[in-house]
Amino acid sequence: MLFFTQCFGAVLDLIHLRFQHYKAKRVFSAAGQLVCVVNPTHSLKYAPTLCAAAQVSTEQGILPPCHHHEAVHDPQLLPCTCPLFSCAWEGHLEVVVSHLRQTHRINILQGAEIVFLATDMHLPAPTDWIIMHSCLGHQFLLVLRKQEKYEGHPQFFATMMLIGTPTQANNFTYRLELNRNQRHLKWEATPRSILECVDSVISDGDCLVLNTSLAQLFSDNGSLAIGIAITTSKVHSSEDEM
Amino acid sequence: MLFFTQCFGAVLDLIHLRFQHYKAKRVFSAAGQLVCVVNPTHSLKYAPTLCAAAQVSTEQGILPPCHHHEAVHDPQLLPCTCPLFSCAWEGHLEVVVSHLRQTHRINILQGAEIVFLATDMHLPAPTDWIIMHSCLGHQFLLVLRKQEKYEGHPQFFATMMLIGTPTQANNFTYRLELNRNQRHLKWEATPRSILECVDSVISDGDCLVLNTSLAQLFSDNGSLAIGIAITTSKVHSSEDEM
Repeated sequence: MLFFTQCFGAVLDLIHLRFQHYKAKRVFSAAGQLVCVVNPTHSLKYAPTLCAAAQVSTEQGILPPCHHHEAVHDPQLLPCTCPLFSCAWEGHLEVVVSHLRQTHRINILQGAEIVFLATDMHLPAPTDWIIMHSCLGHQFLLVLRKQEKYEGHPQFFATMMLIGTPTQANNFTYRLELNRNQRHLKWEATPRSILECVDSVISDGDCLVLNTSLAQLFSDNGSLAIGIAITTSKVHSSEDEM
Repeated sequence: MLFFTQCFGAVLDLIHLRFQHYKAKRVFSAAGQLVCVVNPTHSLKYAPTLCAAAQVSTEQGILPPCHHHEAVHDPQLLPCTCPLFSCAWEGHLEVVVSHLRQTHRINILQGAEIVFLATDMHLPAPTDWIIMHSCLGHQFLLVLRKQEKYEGHPQFFATMMLIGTPTQANNFTYRLELNRNQRHLKWEATPRSILECVDSVISDGDCLVLNTSLAQLFSDNGSLAIGIAITTSKVHSSEDEM
């Protein structure tokens, strides 16, 4: 009996996932666009003061040491850490992607244009929705964060970070788009480097910011579909042409 | 001596205005686009509860009576009032535009695409920046409002209202665009009818919302340039074709 109940549950989950995929595809109505369902992670890490160290060491291209509450130890003992999770891991920039995939199970998606479908938007802050995006020969980290900068007033912050140096980041432009009920919101900017620390990008407000009412207007049944596109920025393109 | 000081002040003001025009034109770099410098008005009116009456009478096409602190009496005694200012005026929808121009000195601009340059963004909330926009045979009211929905946390809300009925409003799409320092933010939506009350649109958050940090990122020397465009919506266009 338990077996049947579990099977039935699994089938229901699959149907629900399929349904969400279908809805997101319908919203963006772009043939061949990859839809990725992203589940939330309740954030345990809040140490924005550690970002000062990140800013200082950015020029040397070394990721700063961060000390968090929850320690997911990695056998490697290289001098850098993962920028998002409560994690004592240290390593070089080149191995950040494999660390995020392996230790934190962050999905990586291929393609110039994808749809990020964040589920369970109603969950209380602090909550993160995270994926990696592989595109134009680089890896990007998309972070959607629900956070209460002001008590009792949760907001959503969405940004894209290049898993690379600030100089490399300047060569790209990322676009985040929301579409629903004849409303359209688009944010375009240069991605920040992962060396700059996602916490400081969000506390500066240099990202797509949605308050709860706007997030609800764009959500469908508790899920928010964000269309993502990355292009090489114009400056870079003209340099290429020269 | 006083005369010379005043003259010098006036010349400085003109130079400053000219400089702001030039900067806004450079930001949007669209030849022939009209730039309108909009000065703030400290808002004295805050009566969101009165909007319930507006919603009820919308279907009859009658503007609701509003009772505000500051009374600017109009000799007309028709059954409606101006939706924005603290004003005891009453009149029909057809005469709202002339009332706003004559009594409240709100400028009206012609053209499908204009640049709204709001000055003195640092002024404390509540503050409004307002112009009317005449386009496609209709008049629209653009409202930028600085308001503290949450104490100590001012936000900017920008929306466009049609000076017409909700049915007429459904035929249009308005676009608000911000551009600066390789950042781009675009909001597109159907304008709301002025009969729906601007206060309720802002309290619903169904508009372009900027927190202070985003507004600062897009501002130049305390002024925010918003590119505005109005088009007939697709549904309407296809109906026209039929």
